[in-house]
Amino acid sequence: MNKEANEDNPKNFNPAVLKKIQQARKMRLSTEEYISGIISADITILSKAITLIESNNPNDFADANTIINACLPKANKSIRIGITGVPGAGKSSFIEVYGKHLTSQGKKVAVLTIDPSSSISHGSILGDKTRMEDLVKDSNAFIRPSASGETLGGVARKTRETITLCEAAGFDTIIIETVGVGQSETAVHSMTDFFLLVQIAGAGDELQAIKRGIMEMADAIVINKADGDNIEKAKLVKTEMNRALHYFPQKKSGWSPKAITCSTKTNEGILEVSQIISEYIESTKNNGFFDRKRAEQNEYWLLETINENLKQDFFNHPQIQEALEKTKKAVQNDETSPFAAAQLLLETYFKNKS
Amino acid sequence: MNKEANEDNPKNFNPAVLKKIQQARKMRLSTEEYISGIISADITILSKAITLIESNNPNDFADANTIINACLPKANKSIRIGITGVPGAGKSSFIEVYGKHLTSQGKKVAVLTIDPSSSISHGSILGDKTRMEDLVKDSNAFIRPSASGETLGGVARKTRETITLCEAAGFDTIIIETVGVGQSETAVHSMTDFFLLVQIAGAGDELQAIKRGIMEMADAIVINKADGDNIEKAKLVKTEMNRALHYFPQKKSGWSPKAITCSTKTNEGILEVSQIISEYIESTKNNGFFDRKRAEQNEYWLLETINENLKQDFFNHPQIQEALEKTKKAVQNDETSPFAAAQLLLETYFKNKS
Repeated sequence: MNKEANEDNPKNFNPAVLKKIQQARKMRLSTEEYISGIISADITILSKAITLIESNNPNDFADANTIINACLPKANKSIRIGITGVPGAGKSSFIEVYGKHLTSQGKKVAVLTIDPSSSISHGSILGDKTRMEDLVKDSNAFIRPSASGETLGGVARKTRETITLCEAAGFDTIIIETVGVGQSETAVHSMTDFFLLVQIAGAGDELQAIKRGIMEMADAIVINKADGDNIEKAKLVKTEMNRALHYFPQKKSGWSPKAITCSTKTNEGILEVSQIISEYIESTKNNGFFDRKRAEQNEYWLLETINENLKQDFFNHPQIQEALEKTKKAVQNDETSPFAAAQLLLETYFKNKS
Repeated sequence: MNKEANEDNPKNFNPAVLKKIQQARKMRLSTEEYISGIISADITILSKAITLIESNNPNDFADANTIINACLPKANKSIRIGITGVPGAGKSSFIEVYGKHLTSQGKKVAVLTIDPSSSISHGSILGDKTRMEDLVKDSNAFIRPSASGETLGGVARKTRETITLCEAAGFDTIIIETVGVGQSETAVHSMTDFFLLVQIAGAGDELQAIKRGIMEMADAIVINKADGDNIEKAKLVKTEMNRALHYFPQKKSGWSPKAITCSTKTNEGILEVSQIISEYIESTKNNGFFDRKRAEQNEYWLLETINENLKQDFFNHPQIQEALEKTKKAVQNDETSPFAAAQLLLETYFKNKS
């Protein structure tokens, strides 16, 4: 455990040494070796392949794409579960208990995180693994934190591709945890089959999810820490959540989300969550929504990646960068119409592209 | 009234004759004449200038931008109110009664619509004016329907610019009605100061607004047709709406939206709506939100226009059009990763641009 934590926690290393190790790792294998290693469920090679697809070195992109595309036919047989909740809701302990429940039933579980902030709070990597102490020792579980030093877009792409590698390596349940702040929920929601919100009873906290629009995405809500003195309060929140759920649109999946209470101390509710997810998967596989959603998600990431890149190319263009702040000010102060100003910038951009 | 309806309703004209009239109209005035005409509140010139900015002829774009930019310093002194609601909620009769209330207090009211469907249901143009029979005769009111034959983006841009011209012509209250379907609400919300939702009591209808995410945008909700046998039902819906409003986020404006009942037959509630809007404007002008929101809206339209144009240029590129459907299919069927596929398309595009 200590060894692993250190490998993933570059601050304990001399940067020059780290770089050499990373280069050695990369040079060691051909794409064929990566691919056959992943498919034969070699966890060490899987880890290295993930490091390769996380690389920002353009020389690695072609190899990364080759590996991912080779893994695709072997992937796609798992269930992908997104888990969100505010910090302190007990997501990690929930994932640990739920993950152990799954491995005890012979499942292979991969836990990934989307945490664009992890580059700042380096500690969270070690923290997650410490919190999931039992799961990390489980040979049927694989825990991999977010790539660090990245924008949300970068983290999302890398996590999405890591899913493919994990699936090709035989993991049948992929859990993706998000930190519960900002836009990371939308990213996780766009790459998972089932979206679970972990809540706790507490003054006003139960409304935060509604207010941030998260509740609308949830397929189930777990009111966590329903133990000891907290049981009654948790039940009240459950009732409140179930009522609030009625205000939201009928889901395209045909599924009616529900709230349940849960405790990672007493294990109450864990089996129920597991059953709810199984029911959801069965029902959406039967009505065709499951496959349709995955196809839509793939198309979403195709178009989203294109749009992001088009914007990046435009807004990073030297002449646009030079003009943009002045244009924004002029538009904000009603000195020019937003449409006329946009036309001017677009003309500048296209003239200098072609 | 008949004459106006005909001018705006091209289907009664021989297209060749119409074109000649339109050309004659356009050639008659210089941009200086347009500008001074608008600023001196000449309604005929205002109408012609709107027709010019609605033109899709690229030769008109420069003149249109000159006129709009010249009007900007004279504009920006009005209040912009967005009104939405499902068809049948009585938006037009509400606008008529509310508009008359405003003109009776010495206000000058312009009523614009965003209706991307009006090119299909030509009748709606005539329909709106017929429904607002009293207001259309009022010399302090100006009613102008959506440009027809347009996408939502096109309609939105033209309406946004029409606001500027109307404001420069001295209209101090701009009402923008949306048809209450699709994305047009978001467009209206992004160009108005106050957003009003018109509802009626009816089986389940009161939940539609919540379900479509409209309620979250509303600054006030009018339960319309609260007269006769309907009064009790309308009051119940009002209570329900006020309760539901609590589930939504605290607004950045600091304003707490409220639901009230209203009748265009008895005029009950009209004064109250007027007072609510005045309170809102006063409160948001005091806390700085009013100006901040307008500046943000301008920036939003700048960036939105840029993004839309970048996407259009990409997706209309012949080689992208050729490759896109095949790529989408490959991505949907997991034959290639969305990110690898996006990279390939982007390379094709940029190689053929530069």
